[in-house]
Amino acid sequence: MIEHPSFATEPWCVRECELDLDVLAQSESVFALSNGHLGLRGNLDEGEPHGIPGTYLNSVYEIRPLPYAEAGFGYPEAGQSIINVTNGKLIRLLVDDEPFDIRYGTLDSHERCLDLRAGTLTRVARWTSPAGCPVRVTSVRLVSLTQRSVAAISYEVEALTDPLRVVVQSELVANEAVPDLGNDPRVAAAIESPLAVEDFRIDGSGAVMVHRTRASGIGVAAAMAHELEGPEGTASQVEGSGDVARYTVTTRILPGQRLRLVKYLAYGWSAERSRSALHDQVVAALAGARSTTWDGLLAEQREFLDDFWSGADVEIVGDLEVQQAVRFALFHIVQSAVRSEQRMIAAKGLTGPGYDGHTFWDTEMFVLPVLTYTNPRAAADALRWRHSTAPLARDRAAQLGLRGTAFPWRTIHGEECSSYWPAGTAAFHVNADIAYAVNRYLDANPDEPFERDVAIELLVETARLFMSLGHHDAAGRFRIDGVTGPDEYSAIADNNVYTNLMVRRNLVGAAEIVARHPERGERLHVTNEETASWRDAAAALVIPHDAALGVHMQSEEFTEHAVWDFDATGPDQYPLFLNFPYFDLYRKQVVKQADLVLAMHMVPEEFTADQKRRNFAYYEALTVRDSSLSASTQSVVAAEVGELELAYAYLRETAFIDLRDRQHNTRDGLHLAALAGAWSALVEGFGGMRTTGGRLSFDPHLPPSTTRFTFRMRFRGRCVAVEVDPDRVTYRLVEGEPLRVRHGDEEFVLHDVVTHVPSPVVPSRFRPTQPKGREPTMPGAET
Amino acid sequence: MIEHPSFATEPWCVRECELDLDVLAQSESVFALSNGHLGLRGNLDEGEPHGIPGTYLNSVYEIRPLPYAEAGFGYPEAGQSIINVTNGKLIRLLVDDEPFDIRYGTLDSHERCLDLRAGTLTRVARWTSPAGCPVRVTSVRLVSLTQRSVAAISYEVEALTDPLRVVVQSELVANEAVPDLGNDPRVAAAIESPLAVEDFRIDGSGAVMVHRTRASGIGVAAAMAHELEGPEGTASQVEGSGDVARYTVTTRILPGQRLRLVKYLAYGWSAERSRSALHDQVVAALAGARSTTWDGLLAEQREFLDDFWSGADVEIVGDLEVQQAVRFALFHIVQSAVRSEQRMIAAKGLTGPGYDGHTFWDTEMFVLPVLTYTNPRAAADALRWRHSTAPLARDRAAQLGLRGTAFPWRTIHGEECSSYWPAGTAAFHVNADIAYAVNRYLDANPDEPFERDVAIELLVETARLFMSLGHHDAAGRFRIDGVTGPDEYSAIADNNVYTNLMVRRNLVGAAEIVARHPERGERLHVTNEETASWRDAAAALVIPHDAALGVHMQSEEFTEHAVWDFDATGPDQYPLFLNFPYFDLYRKQVVKQADLVLAMHMVPEEFTADQKRRNFAYYEALTVRDSSLSASTQSVVAAEVGELELAYAYLRETAFIDLRDRQHNTRDGLHLAALAGAWSALVEGFGGMRTTGGRLSFDPHLPPSTTRFTFRMRFRGRCVAVEVDPDRVTYRLVEGEPLRVRHGDEEFVLHDVVTHVPSPVVPSRFRPTQPKGREPTMPGAET
Repeated sequence: MIEHPSFATEPWCVRECELDLDVLAQSESVFALSNGHLGLRGNLDEGEPHGIPGTYLNSVYEIRPLPYAEAGFGYPEAGQSIINVTNGKLIRLLVDDEPFDIRYGTLDSHERCLDLRAGTLTRVARWTSPAGCPVRVTSVRLVSLTQRSVAAISYEVEALTDPLRVVVQSELVANEAVPDLGNDPRVAAAIESPLAVEDFRIDGSGAVMVHRTRASGIGVAAAMAHELEGPEGTASQVEGSGDVARYTVTTRILPGQRLRLVKYLAYGWSAERSRSALHDQVVAALAGARSTTWDGLLAEQREFLDDFWSGADVEIVGDLEVQQAVRFALFHIVQSAVRSEQRMIAAKGLTGPGYDGHTFWDTEMFVLPVLTYTNPRAAADALRWRHSTAPLARDRAAQLGLRGTAFPWRTIHGEECSSYWPAGTAAFHVNADIAYAVNRYLDANPDEPFERDVAIELLVETARLFMSLGHHDAAGRFRIDGVTGPDEYSAIADNNVYTNLMVRRNLVGAAEIVARHPERGERLHVTNEETASWRDAAAALVIPHDAALGVHMQSEEFTEHAVWDFDATGPDQYPLFLNFPYFDLYRKQVVKQADLVLAMHMVPEEFTADQKRRNFAYYEALTVRDSSLSASTQSVVAAEVGELELAYAYLRETAFIDLRDRQHNTRDGLHLAALAGAWSALVEGFGGMRTTGGRLSFDPHLPPSTTRFTFRMRFRGRCVAVEVDPDRVTYRLVEGEPLRVRHGDEEFVLHDVVTHVPSPVVPSRFRPTQPKGREPTMPGAET
Repeated sequence: MIEHPSFATEPWCVRECELDLDVLAQSESVFALSNGHLGLRGNLDEGEPHGIPGTYLNSVYEIRPLPYAEAGFGYPEAGQSIINVTNGKLIRLLVDDEPFDIRYGTLDSHERCLDLRAGTLTRVARWTSPAGCPVRVTSVRLVSLTQRSVAAISYEVEALTDPLRVVVQSELVANEAVPDLGNDPRVAAAIESPLAVEDFRIDGSGAVMVHRTRASGIGVAAAMAHELEGPEGTASQVEGSGDVARYTVTTRILPGQRLRLVKYLAYGWSAERSRSALHDQVVAALAGARSTTWDGLLAEQREFLDDFWSGADVEIVGDLEVQQAVRFALFHIVQSAVRSEQRMIAAKGLTGPGYDGHTFWDTEMFVLPVLTYTNPRAAADALRWRHSTAPLARDRAAQLGLRGTAFPWRTIHGEECSSYWPAGTAAFHVNADIAYAVNRYLDANPDEPFERDVAIELLVETARLFMSLGHHDAAGRFRIDGVTGPDEYSAIADNNVYTNLMVRRNLVGAAEIVARHPERGERLHVTNEETASWRDAAAALVIPHDAALGVHMQSEEFTEHAVWDFDATGPDQYPLFLNFPYFDLYRKQVVKQADLVLAMHMVPEEFTADQKRRNFAYYEALTVRDSSLSASTQSVVAAEVGELELAYAYLRETAFIDLRDRQHNTRDGLHLAALAGAWSALVEGFGGMRTTGGRLSFDPHLPPSTTRFTFRMRFRGRCVAVEVDPDRVTYRLVEGEPLRVRHGDEEFVLHDVVTHVPSPVVPSRFRPTQPKGREPTMPGAET
């Protein structure tokens, strides 16, 4: 999108220099603001035109039936869809008697800027009405990262040449019409008018509305209050009923004069609390925000972000585009998570309705690593949410005839919402992924209460799931048959290597945590026999390997299958799943997204360097990257096997996923996991950062065509900076106690600053190539 | 159902001695009459009470959308459902002023009898009205096996003790209300009011109605005419409009006097022909029927059946229940097929709405063998129907990225209607099954025009399908990956043995027919290279075998999977698919229906005797028979491996499927394929009948506890009778030229009568046992 001439590349902000309606919906996602609890799409203040209007509250969803032409036992009957809640960001303007609508009159200039350090979206528009009156509108919007329920907007109107009669209508509107989003399975089901009014009150300079969702029964409260600065004679009033509350300001401004409005918004929801409790909750939040003041909110916002960047920033000298993109990515990740507080982090955060607002395994495998090393409290919170849904996962496991917990493939509230089980229920790896995220978090952030209250149950119950899912064969090997790995172009296969290796970690981790907390283990009825069975199964897991080809099989029989006919597949036939039937994709060697390669990224100790090189080359030739969850993993492993140019190409692909709308669906929301992948590609790929057993190691290399690359991360209470220059790597302990660190094969204690020489890059003798037409764009070759 | 005390066991009819409303719906299926074009459920004349009202025309269906919560490429968007067309069998009666309804008043006696030689359903009811007036109602119903469009009913009312005022209303009613049939996937989707009126005419003693289906646009015409005999003063009139035409007779009858009505019905449909053409067509058919007269129709019916039985009868002395059941089965098979004339034969014939009225592979694999050897013209007609849908199958193959034809898993008109592809589209064996049926028909009935016009294209195009579906691996073996075999508790597996062996036959058969008809082959663009590739692939097909266990694997990896926990499965948890998720069934060793065992039945030459015994014992322990398409195959193979008691138990199971409502869904229609299995179990199992290469062979054994077993069959223009007595087997050439026949290992020419000694029975040393609780009921142990 930023390829558009109206976009500028800057290190600390995303700036749009003019408005292009063709990319309006995408820009709404890019300019979305959120704090993990409340999300506002970057819709224009005046509401129209819009791509997709969106105001979201984490975990406020509506239930809808899931239809099946041919139903089967255990198919979920109800889906959950994120809904567009009460829109409080709406501020309409009448200039003389013309509504400010950029489709009419003349838009003399229009600039929007998402400031990644200020945490604000600023808009400046100079517009001449059809009647010829020019006006300047300036708005600054924020969703508070420090006050969970709060958003605020500063809105200014300035007369430029002539005196103007101005009317501003600042609104709360429930049940906005939402566009039908079509049939793409990655898009949400639109739900019409999901909110039923429960309460409506005019209150001073604002209003409070309480609604309830019709089927899911969730109470949603929204409130607004205003502060007004304007010339003498400026008058205001509040009115409305039902789904619309309207604060109207009328005034007359002379050239150079301004009308300024500060709108405070507060949102709350609950499935339990009463209407009046909800009402009071948002009124209180509003009072808090007003007492902080607009300037106070701005200051808090910047302070929060300063602190975040001090432990998270990644700096690239020599590639401003990547520089901007990785900060854009980190900003969206942190704002999607920081105040979600034991609610889920959706695949699109709160930036759009895509995927129905569901969370998937990619939160644990892609997003949580970033948070684990930059804002660990948010990572722990997300895992606490998973833990809170364990009873539902236990019920689901029981329904499936399994023990332990079977976490859902996709959900908002915790129930399984996937209606296509071969790519949903059968993808049991989500459970091992959750266990992996738990272990990774604890490895980087020793956290005794979390370990006792959350981790042990998650690890034990997922271990139990896999013990009941697998079985020992006659030779004593432990098999897990008929499951689906990460690659969605294969399904229901035996002994998926990724799944089995992740399960090995899960089982061993469960045995270890029980050993550390025997009394907690006892409460979960874990016996020595049980932990012994976990260790046994972990050691006996089948890891299929094709001796003739010298590579691992993604799953049993995989390398025996026909290779997809890439030569006969045209560029317009990607993504393949929109153009070919699943039956055919499943039975051939074609990989939608890293699967075996993801295993090499996540459990690197299970592969020799030679296996990594052979496997990477083999699967590279089969991987079409029809999923956004692929390039980052390919980047990390490409870097590890010495393919730095390729690693950089994949880094750019994942980093630009939304800024350049690479998947053509940024309109439905951002790809948080792919954005997180930009961080992974840099820190884990070029930085070579790995952690296991509480030990931090690096093997940094400067990305091609850059002159300096630095990153900061938090680990076990420390903040570490790694600075990569052409001839040296500098490790700096920014904060905390000295720490044992590895650089390549060398181990040292980092007290203050240590400098090393980068290890040599040895390109693989197994040359990776990609399917015809699916080669990544190599750096410098981009159009 | 016949277990019910009101049912009697007789050799040539199914008689119900009193009416039990609890089994009304089942009796409607059992008493259904059909000729393959028109089907009437055995509903009571007066229409109510009913289980499911049903009047069906072969291939008259309505289209309905197939919903998907998550759609995928190539999923069929439209389903086809059989509809209940205009009901012409309705005859209501008013006795004095009380409607004849067996739920009121007193039913003094009620008997229904399906006569398997007369081809009629007779009903005699003596009823005393609530006002105390007794009356006898006698109806005889037939669907003509000789006049395709015609059904007729003789309806008599007799006063018994008092003079009665009688009103008879004989009707045509369209868009009857149909009950909602619930959620079981084996049941149909009810479609409300599918017929829109196009024409309505009162015509003499009757009426003609033309309707059109709303979405599928099929014109449906129904007409009725009447002949009346009654006392002086009997009056009649016809009236009605729209969806109801009514012929009303009023009279007064004295004790001993009777009112008799003969109702002639004619039905026609067309998607092409005009309303007036359809109108005239049924009027003409009606005229033909009336000129034949009621007695003439009865005589034609008996003559047709006499001829049928002379070449098809199976006689069992010593087990009257099986005797009745196998004739019931043969009767329903022949009446479902004889006049279907290049339309499909549905899984339930025209006896009920189950499975939406679709045809599946079981027509080719279970029903057509019976017809092939008893009424070959009907078998050829059914295959001509498949051939007529080849263009649709070619389109489907192209959509799936394949060559040749991909025939649908389930359909009425030819389009794929399966909405669950792992058990639909992926079950490609349906194509090899069609090829098999073609080869089998030709083997038993040399038919030059059929070979040229139908067979070669079916064989060539299915061969092409499989060539594009499979591939050669590095070792040169030909693999077919990711397909579903007959067993619906496994899916999307590699190298299913049944599929691969059937494909071998398909490929070889295609090469052979092209060699016989090179000019036709050329028209289909078959080259020598292509036929060579078929033979090569056929020879190289992978047939997975587990060397350690010494058995074939149903599919690759099958014997490595965990065995289903049968001990933990309660009797109320069958059928498993209603109580366990597919993902779990698919990944375990549990077999819904014969798959590897079916391969041994259908392509016996591919297995040694020892393999058959080992394989049978192995799979017997895993097979739960949750499909009605299993017991017959198990019976045939049990007989072959010397397990005669077991074979007989399975014979009885399949033979009684509907008469005893073994699957609890006879209400939705009869299980034609399972009924056909009763014939297979006897003729192919106990008779040991096999045919390959135009050579007929037998290896007959007397079923346990019977004293004599004979069967007749047609083969290459002959009629052969086989008579099995305790100490000898007699072969008799009933009709046709002398024929070379095998008895066990002995070959002889059958001129007139030849007698042999039955071969000794050697029970297997691999004792077959069944999953706990799924043992068949052994003869004598039935309750």
